[in-house]
Amino acid sequence: MSEATERDERHLARMQRKKAVIDERIANSPNECGLLLVLTGNGKGKSSSAFGMLARALGHGMQCGVVQFIKGRNSTGEELFFRRFPEQVRYHVMGEGFTWETQDRQRDIAAAEAAWAVSRQLLQDPSVQFVVLDELNIALKHGYLDLDQVLSDIQGRPPMQHVIVTGRAAKPEMIELADTVTEMGMLKHAFQAGIRAQKGVEL
Amino acid sequence: MSEATERDERHLARMQRKKAVIDERIANSPNECGLLLVLTGNGKGKSSSAFGMLARALGHGMQCGVVQFIKGRNSTGEELFFRRFPEQVRYHVMGEGFTWETQDRQRDIAAAEAAWAVSRQLLQDPSVQFVVLDELNIALKHGYLDLDQVLSDIQGRPPMQHVIVTGRAAKPEMIELADTVTEMGMLKHAFQAGIRAQKGVEL
Repeated sequence: MSEATERDERHLARMQRKKAVIDERIANSPNECGLLLVLTGNGKGKSSSAFGMLARALGHGMQCGVVQFIKGRNSTGEELFFRRFPEQVRYHVMGEGFTWETQDRQRDIAAAEAAWAVSRQLLQDPSVQFVVLDELNIALKHGYLDLDQVLSDIQGRPPMQHVIVTGRAAKPEMIELADTVTEMGMLKHAFQAGIRAQKGVEL
Repeated sequence: MSEATERDERHLARMQRKKAVIDERIANSPNECGLLLVLTGNGKGKSSSAFGMLARALGHGMQCGVVQFIKGRNSTGEELFFRRFPEQVRYHVMGEGFTWETQDRQRDIAAAEAAWAVSRQLLQDPSVQFVVLDELNIALKHGYLDLDQVLSDIQGRPPMQHVIVTGRAAKPEMIELADTVTEMGMLKHAFQAGIRAQKGVEL
């Protein structure tokens, strides 16, 4: 048997075992339920990831809601894009800018509270199947919102509703409540090399 | 001075320093250039993140291309969604399924090579401003494609074109070439708790 054929055979045997394991796990998992996903860490991709899942949800015809707790200094591409689908996405930009832009803690708190009021409406509406709470972790980290209230509102949502929470420094209690948590680590960032934020990538 | 006012004052001073540092870094960074971003690691969110950036790019009116090197067992939400915009996105699903589904190494190699041929066309077209090479890292990890050729094609792309590469186990040479690299770590995954992949989240 040639070396290439042997490698192919080994590959086949390994993949057959892997398929059996995965098929069994899928067969044993419950069918459907609303998940809480948390995307945290210092790396790039937390909000992008939430918006990629939003695109998926739209592809499946779901009704979606977005609340952005921190508005960047530029009008962002995702807002420009997802506002094209008002019949499927309720899009709310509530924050006043990064904390180092507003420089006013009381104004930040008022903005976060207004954003949470809108979020609660989404979390109480069974017709909304998919909710993005973008940068909520930052509002919690700065103590702008009551953590217990936030967790209890998320926990009390309709059972089939998915919720995606983004932002660095997720609270341990948020991680505890979540079904899936990804920690995005920055191995390298163009900004370190002096490259400005780019349209389509960061903006 | 009350405790709350003191906290607000400290916040203001800290945020003023932070703003000065960030404004200076932005002023000193070059204006625009095409970035290579790599999203790797075992955590959930790599492809989602690429598709979120794609949404941003579409928001800015960019011309985009997508090549999916591995097709999942389900028709995915992102494909359903982004195919709605054929005038802005060239969408190619080239893979045959996860390696444990096809169980045929030679067929996987042929599919990967066909996918790379399409990718090269995008990487040689200056009218394409944003390219997603989804799960390319997996094809490279399994040795389905020639790494040097892939890196050289990416390096030779039009200078303003952004490229996003996803998939676990990115090659060190790919990380070396990249401008921004995020390692997505899995802190927790619903699948571990026996919950099936969900529409809008994974599918």
